Amino acid sequence: MSYRPEQAAAIRAMRSAAPYIRMYKGKVFIVKIGGAIFSNPQAVRSLVEQVAILHQVGIRVVLVHGGGPQLDEMQRSLGVEPTLIDGRRVTDEKTVELTVMVLNGLLNTQLLSLCRELGLDAVGISGLDGGLVRAHKRAPVKSTSGVLVDYGQVGDIEGVDPHVIRSLLDAGYMPIVSPLSADAEGNVLNINADTVAAHLGAALGAEKLLLCTGAAGIFEQLADPSTLVSYTDLAGLKRLEALGCFADGMLPKAGAIETAIKGGVRRVHVISFKSTDALLAEVFTNEGLGTLIVADIKVLSPAEQVVGAKKP
Amino acid sequence: MSYRPEQAAAIRAMRSAAPYIRMYKGKVFIVKIGGAIFSNPQAVRSLVEQVAILHQVGIRVVLVHGGGPQLDEMQRSLGVEPTLIDGRRVTDEKTVELTVMVLNGLLNTQLLSLCRELGLDAVGISGLDGGLVRAHKRAPVKSTSGVLVDYGQVGDIEGVDPHVIRSLLDAGYMPIVSPLSADAEGNVLNINADTVAAHLGAALGAEKLLLCTGAAGIFEQLADPSTLVSYTDLAGLKRLEALGCFADGMLPKAGAIETAIKGGVRRVHVISFKSTDALLAEVFTNEGLGTLIVADIKVLSPAEQVVGAKKP
Amino acid sequence: MSYRPEQAAAIRAMRSAAPYIRMYKGKVFIVKIGGAIFSNPQAVRSLVEQVAILHQVGIRVVLVHGGGPQLDEMQRSLGVEPTLIDGRRVTDEKTVELTVMVLNGLLNTQLLSLCRELGLDAVGISGLDGGLVRAHKRAPVKSTSGVLVDYGQVGDIEGVDPHVIRSLLDAGYMPIVSPLSADAEGNVLNINADTVAAHLGAALGAEKLLLCTGAAGIFEQLADPSTLVSYTDLAGLKRLEALGCFADGMLPKAGAIETAIKGGVRRVHVISFKSTDALLAEVFTNEGLGTLIVADIKVLSPAEQVVGAKKP
Amino acid sequence: MSYRPEQAAAIRAMRSAAPYIRMYKGKVFIVKIGGAIFSNPQAVRSLVEQVAILHQVGIRVVLVHGGGPQLDEMQRSLGVEPTLIDGRRVTDEKTVELTVMVLNGLLNTQLLSLCRELGLDAVGISGLDGGLVRAHKRAPVKSTSGVLVDYGQVGDIEGVDPHVIRSLLDAGYMPIVSPLSADAEGNVLNINADTVAAHLGAALGAEKLLLCTGAAGIFEQLADPSTLVSYTDLAGLKRLEALGCFADGMLPKAGAIETAIKGGVRRVHVISFKSTDALLAEVFTNEGLGTLIVADIKVLSPAEQVVGAKKP
Amino acid sequence: MSYRPEQAAAIRAMRSAAPYIRMYKGKVFIVKIGGAIFSNPQAVRSLVEQVAILHQVGIRVVLVHGGGPQLDEMQRSLGVEPTLIDGRRVTDEKTVELTVMVLNGLLNTQLLSLCRELGLDAVGISGLDGGLVRAHKRAPVKSTSGVLVDYGQVGDIEGVDPHVIRSLLDAGYMPIVSPLSADAEGNVLNINADTVAAHLGAALGAEKLLLCTGAAGIFEQLADPSTLVSYTDLAGLKRLEALGCFADGMLPKAGAIETAIKGGVRRVHVISFKSTDALLAEVFTNEGLGTLIVADIKVLSPAEQVVGAKKP
Amino acid sequence: MSYRPEQAAAIRAMRSAAPYIRMYKGKVFIVKIGGAIFSNPQAVRSLVEQVAILHQVGIRVVLVHGGGPQLDEMQRSLGVEPTLIDGRRVTDEKTVELTVMVLNGLLNTQLLSLCRELGLDAVGISGLDGGLVRAHKRAPVKSTSGVLVDYGQVGDIEGVDPHVIRSLLDAGYMPIVSPLSADAEGNVLNINADTVAAHLGAALGAEKLLLCTGAAGIFEQLADPSTLVSYTDLAGLKRLEALGCFADGMLPKAGAIETAIKGGVRRVHVISFKSTDALLAEVFTNEGLGTLIVADIKVLSPAEQVVGAKKP
Repeated sequence: MSYRPEQAAAIRAMRSAAPYIRMYKGKVFIVKIGGAIFSNPQAVRSLVEQVAILHQVGIRVVLVHGGGPQLDEMQRSLGVEPTLIDGRRVTDEKTVELTVMVLNGLLNTQLLSLCRELGLDAVGISGLDGGLVRAHKRAPVKSTSGVLVDYGQVGDIEGVDPHVIRSLLDAGYMPIVSPLSADAEGNVLNINADTVAAHLGAALGAEKLLLCTGAAGIFEQLADPSTLVSYTDLAGLKRLEALGCFADGMLPKAGAIETAIKGGVRRVHVISFKSTDALLAEVFTNEGLGTLIVADIKVLSPAEQVVGAKKP
Repeated sequence: MSYRPEQAAAIRAMRSAAPYIRMYKGKVFIVKIGGAIFSNPQAVRSLVEQVAILHQVGIRVVLVHGGGPQLDEMQRSLGVEPTLIDGRRVTDEKTVELTVMVLNGLLNTQLLSLCRELGLDAVGISGLDGGLVRAHKRAPVKSTSGVLVDYGQVGDIEGVDPHVIRSLLDAGYMPIVSPLSADAEGNVLNINADTVAAHLGAALGAEKLLLCTGAAGIFEQLADPSTLVSYTDLAGLKRLEALGCFADGMLPKAGAIETAIKGGVRRVHVISFKSTDALLAEVFTNEGLGTLIVADIKVLSPAEQVVGAKKP
Repeated sequence: MSYRPEQAAAIRAMRSAAPYIRMYKGKVFIVKIGGAIFSNPQAVRSLVEQVAILHQVGIRVVLVHGGGPQLDEMQRSLGVEPTLIDGRRVTDEKTVELTVMVLNGLLNTQLLSLCRELGLDAVGISGLDGGLVRAHKRAPVKSTSGVLVDYGQVGDIEGVDPHVIRSLLDAGYMPIVSPLSADAEGNVLNINADTVAAHLGAALGAEKLLLCTGAAGIFEQLADPSTLVSYTDLAGLKRLEALGCFADGMLPKAGAIETAIKGGVRRVHVISFKSTDALLAEVFTNEGLGTLIVADIKVLSPAEQVVGAKKP
Repeated sequence: MSYRPEQAAAIRAMRSAAPYIRMYKGKVFIVKIGGAIFSNPQAVRSLVEQVAILHQVGIRVVLVHGGGPQLDEMQRSLGVEPTLIDGRRVTDEKTVELTVMVLNGLLNTQLLSLCRELGLDAVGISGLDGGLVRAHKRAPVKSTSGVLVDYGQVGDIEGVDPHVIRSLLDAGYMPIVSPLSADAEGNVLNINADTVAAHLGAALGAEKLLLCTGAAGIFEQLADPSTLVSYTDLAGLKRLEALGCFADGMLPKAGAIETAIKGGVRRVHVISFKSTDALLAEVFTNEGLGTLIVADIKVLSPAEQVVGAKKP
Repeated sequence: MSYRPEQAAAIRAMRSAAPYIRMYKGKVFIVKIGGAIFSNPQAVRSLVEQVAILHQVGIRVVLVHGGGPQLDEMQRSLGVEPTLIDGRRVTDEKTVELTVMVLNGLLNTQLLSLCRELGLDAVGISGLDGGLVRAHKRAPVKSTSGVLVDYGQVGDIEGVDPHVIRSLLDAGYMPIVSPLSADAEGNVLNINADTVAAHLGAALGAEKLLLCTGAAGIFEQLADPSTLVSYTDLAGLKRLEALGCFADGMLPKAGAIETAIKGGVRRVHVISFKSTDALLAEVFTNEGLGTLIVADIKVLSPAEQVVGAKKP
Repeated sequence: MSYRPEQAAAIRAMRSAAPYIRMYKGKVFIVKIGGAIFSNPQAVRSLVEQVAILHQVGIRVVLVHGGGPQLDEMQRSLGVEPTLIDGRRVTDEKTVELTVMVLNGLLNTQLLSLCRELGLDAVGISGLDGGLVRAHKRAPVKSTSGVLVDYGQVGDIEGVDPHVIRSLLDAGYMPIVSPLSADAEGNVLNINADTVAAHLGAALGAEKLLLCTGAAGIFEQLADPSTLVSYTDLAGLKRLEALGCFADGMLPKAGAIETAIKGGVRRVHVISFKSTDALLAEVFTNEGLGTLIVADIKVLSPAEQVVGAKKP
């Protein structure tokens, strides 16, 4: 007897997925989604579905979300124009409250609702919870255009205490992290979500940091899709940065990638949330998408040799 | 030699507090604060300070907050008049989003900020997190005035899985619970905070449920402070309810008290957040405030006999 | 961009498999393979591959094997004709030693070799190890043809102590169980592998017992494939037995199924090891094969309602 | 409404005590009381009450007691005059038995009785129990007056195995330690209680060693209360020793303080058991009493910065 | 080659001891020694040596000691004649202090010294430690001679909390228990050591209670060694009691045996500490000594059938 | 009264055995038996009885067995003459299957049967189980006679993962290890049992490796019993090897001893399984048999000083 084609494919797939499941079981993956995804409900749902699958096969997933565009929109609906300098938001006192409502409230809860619907036990936190992220207000810094900028209620990370995340993972929950934190006096601070994700990855010894963006990866020339960088390392990253490949919103991303890799995260992926099933493809097939960044492209780890054919 | 008066008092106090610390160590206290308190920043700070002290001496405190007035205010600032029937909010689709922003975002984070400042490791959650509260949309019900009311996105609790709270308490964190939840399809539902607090108390086998309200307790005649009921039981509660003592916003409170007591919570206190240090007084002195409700006033438990002089 | 067809199928498959993984994670599956499979090396490899996948996604698999045909062959190669009565082997003193060599030695080790090759951490045991199966020599019994038969060194199970299996599963190993045991005096006893599998399933509270046979299931009329029974319950099993559907080698199987179901195993499957990927299909798709036996066909358990479309 | 003055003070006190409770929770405090205190039943009771409070707020207290005066008295009541040289007792064979009866029997049990009355779960042990203190008989030593003295059954400590104390603390008990021990042949040895307390402090990584004596601290000139040294370090201690500030019974104390500090105890306090509530004042207020000795007065630890105003 | 006779015997002995070790490993044995043994240092040493061996092969031994004769002697040396009525001591206020010194001090420490010498990690406690024995002063009772007797500071046991003993056993220590306790007000109470041993046995679910006395067991006629009762049960005990076999000091023993058996202790042995190696013989050979009492002589437990030849 | 001589000896023996039990409790002993023993059923039984006693007093025993002679015999009964070069078997493809049947099947099960009879909970494994022994096919090597030999399916050990053995020991089981393993492709490899035992000893940090052989130890001159080497070290071993004392089957033994000692095993004993009770004598008496090899004969460890009189 034979299976209907769909079933046969499902079965073949379990066979091909098995070695990856074995390789990644118990490893920490940080999945970071930018706010851009929230304007696309179907993309959000698809991403959470994928994350749920990773969680169910035993990967310790931590989901970090941003929310810039939603915040912009909220500000604009109240007649205020948001200010961004070098891809980082200027957060005055009035903006902080709104940031809290959008990030810790609206978006974090939206993800939790989806998890409830999908039967995934998730717990939403932010850098304020359980002393997760220690930060202080950023001192005014010179922008790339040479002006001294006071970003306002924006935080620079001093340290991460991952105990609350480990407690949740050990208890079987998937943490969903909003990137806000507070200083020691309790003043809420806005922190770039890429930066938070990178620090969490380092503190948790993550196997992978997956940055899900609106772009399909890092490009040598922004306007030219044919220049996608599919594989590079820290040295290459520096070279690309010097070439000006990290414009605007990408600038914090370059720093985050560096933070993660130097902190011991083995692989950072920049992938597009628009690519259907990009996460599953990245984890369960040998068809990697977007850009992969490792510490040093010349050093192959033993794990790379286990699942031979896999892209690098 | 002798101590300065303040120090001498501090020392005497530790002596008098010691038996209460011993009695309550490791017990669960649910502290519920209504939204009214948030209009009084000093009262919020004082309450969190008190809660921090309970947490530090080893009581397992769970803080549940409401947020009705803040939600009203937010709605009104957007030109919408909130609707409440029998003390419970009607939550249409537009209101839900606002509710999430105010409760899970603004207020929950405000409490976390304060905890950060006070050095208290707290984690903010809501009924959506970790499957804590299972609920479904309330079917239209007849109001006390006989009209059939569809409360909209308002939830009735089906059950509570306290695992996420236990995990957090065991890991040393104080949970701060926003009363929202969602149905199995992920639709966010607004639930009365008193009701959530009562169910959590029952599910966690709480020693005390402390309802901190704007009123000084339950009164036989609302307008007359001299009619404060200082001590009653379930039977008495029913009698007071029949007398109409639970007007408007107090109506859900009566149900919550009953839920808690029947669920096994040993003592429910209705106290005023306006009374300075009401929580500390309630726990560490024999000077109880407000109204205390027990299952049956005629039955004295063994614990009552340990600290003899204490109000019932 | 789009995936190559194979990758796309792999991804779709992970999506369709996810709810089954969630449903079965941590559950015990007893997979029993008869000796017939060993004459087909490709079938053995395929089966162990499937079992490895179940193990990797977190199902607690226990593999039980028989070895009748190999034993027959070995006996015949030494010039002895094996004796079977009512599907059960007569094991004289000379045969026991051979049985040990073939079952505990040759076949158990062959499965372990395959596991080594597939990177699956397995441990081979038999009913003799760690007090797993307590048995005594079977008293002479009347055969179906009315003759009193002394089956020789054949055991009847007195009890099962699953501690050794639980220890191995907890330590991350997949136990591979040969069906031999010994009496309290250490005399080795041959026990029907179906019977051992059924008793293990009951002792371990297994979710499924999968009997992989050479036949495609249970047939109302042995010669007629169109009479496959796809779904029945204990009452139906009795009726089929009365109809004479369990001829020869199938007779112990009927008893084993009954033992398992009465012992609390939720589902017993009779499937063919010749059907490609029969195990994966059974677990990860809604395309069940062979015969499924439950306690009572009229009672649907809650789990059945989770994954709706699945064959009962 | 307002509290009665006493209650108001109690509440204020809990507020002021809270940061200290947080700072010291889980830390080890060695409290050593000399035998002198036993002639003052009210002082003993007060001290045990204070120790009970420290225990109840989560400090891991180990109480070490001496018993010199009681032993003197007992000896004298039997017509024997005790011999002390350089503040250390000469213990002949007849004296040992009496020492056991007074220290391990009378005084240790007296403290246990009080704990029973106060509801404090304590366990009395000595250096003999569970291999706690390994010691050998002291070789004859030259006294300060130049004579070679055989102190008899007096022990010098070889090492401490704190496992029995940790087991008791972990099980929730407060150990009460009598300073006797025995050599490897089981000969009971009398050891100075200050010395035992100092070694326990070092072995347990104690936060504080509190030496409760009849004097109010260390004085530059013994006869002049105005010369109390309130704060010094190891270098200062040496200087004071050179000045002759440690006469008679204080001599072993100087050595014990040095042992403790060098062994890693962060702070040693010499306080008077006659000062009412000296322990509570030391722990819960910023009004330190007596003499505080640290390793190096110029180095401020991070903990010092947590509770700002506190004496050093 | 052959062994020297002594070695050959040692080896044979390990063979014969092995099944008993297997049978008793992890079981609780309460060994009670009366004060009489202390006048015989060699007997004490021999007994502790035997107890150490039981401890080393993995039996959980609790050693309980009395001390009547030593107390008598101490009293008499101070010119006071001790008073005993019906085998129980009258303990006036002056006597209590002496009792503490002799039991908790002298004798308990003597046993600890011996353990130190033998390398056995023991911890000495009494009923006062860790809330082990809850007791109250005995109300005046009518003696067997009909007089109303106030036994003074003598305790009746209300309950036993074996947590402190379990903590010590789990941490690898052998508890040595002095039979004193205190009431809730901390007044020390003298309790019969047989009674304490019996209650501990019941609270700990002991396998054996071994009462080591000066007599060789229970005799039908006290003066006649040939009337030794080697095996009886509760009914038999009652019959012997009615016959007057429990004179004076034996009277509390009869009650203790009954308490133990009714509390679930499987076997109570009355053996003589004068018989060399009585404990080892009782445990490791089939040559039981003295008197064995079980609940019901007609019921043989499964354990009895494991080591066949053993006396009952 | 007095004991019958046999009982008295048993008791004396327990006394003499006690310090050894204390010394070895919880330590790992690897006991290796060569195949020669299996031709002597009484010797096998005696050895397993001894091993059972070691297991029962708390030593963590791992039993490793060979099976060369049985394999020879089996081969010869099938008309094939086995080939051994330098004491190591040449294993062609046909031989492997037979090896599996004899070692993993016949002999391993025979030991398990005996354990079942003796009530010892044992679990039979081989180097294939649970990734215990990682090995690869030996490259052709020059024999001592200078010929290049391809030993066939013979393995060289790459590494040992003792997790499966630790899991079994922790769960209370005695592992019985057959020396077969497989390479990463699952090809079964025959490995010398002495070599396996040595590697296990090193990986488990064994206290003792006991090689039970047909010879009474190592002899300076093979034909002369008076030249037994009773005590030597690694340097001595090299010297003996140079002298040609390790002929034929003894050659792998010399390597195994070196592997074990260099891997950290404290003592290797070569003893004869023909000496009655050799194991018990070695462990429980000071009458060592055979040859003892340590790392360096001039260095006495602290443990040697605990049990003074014992042969080095």
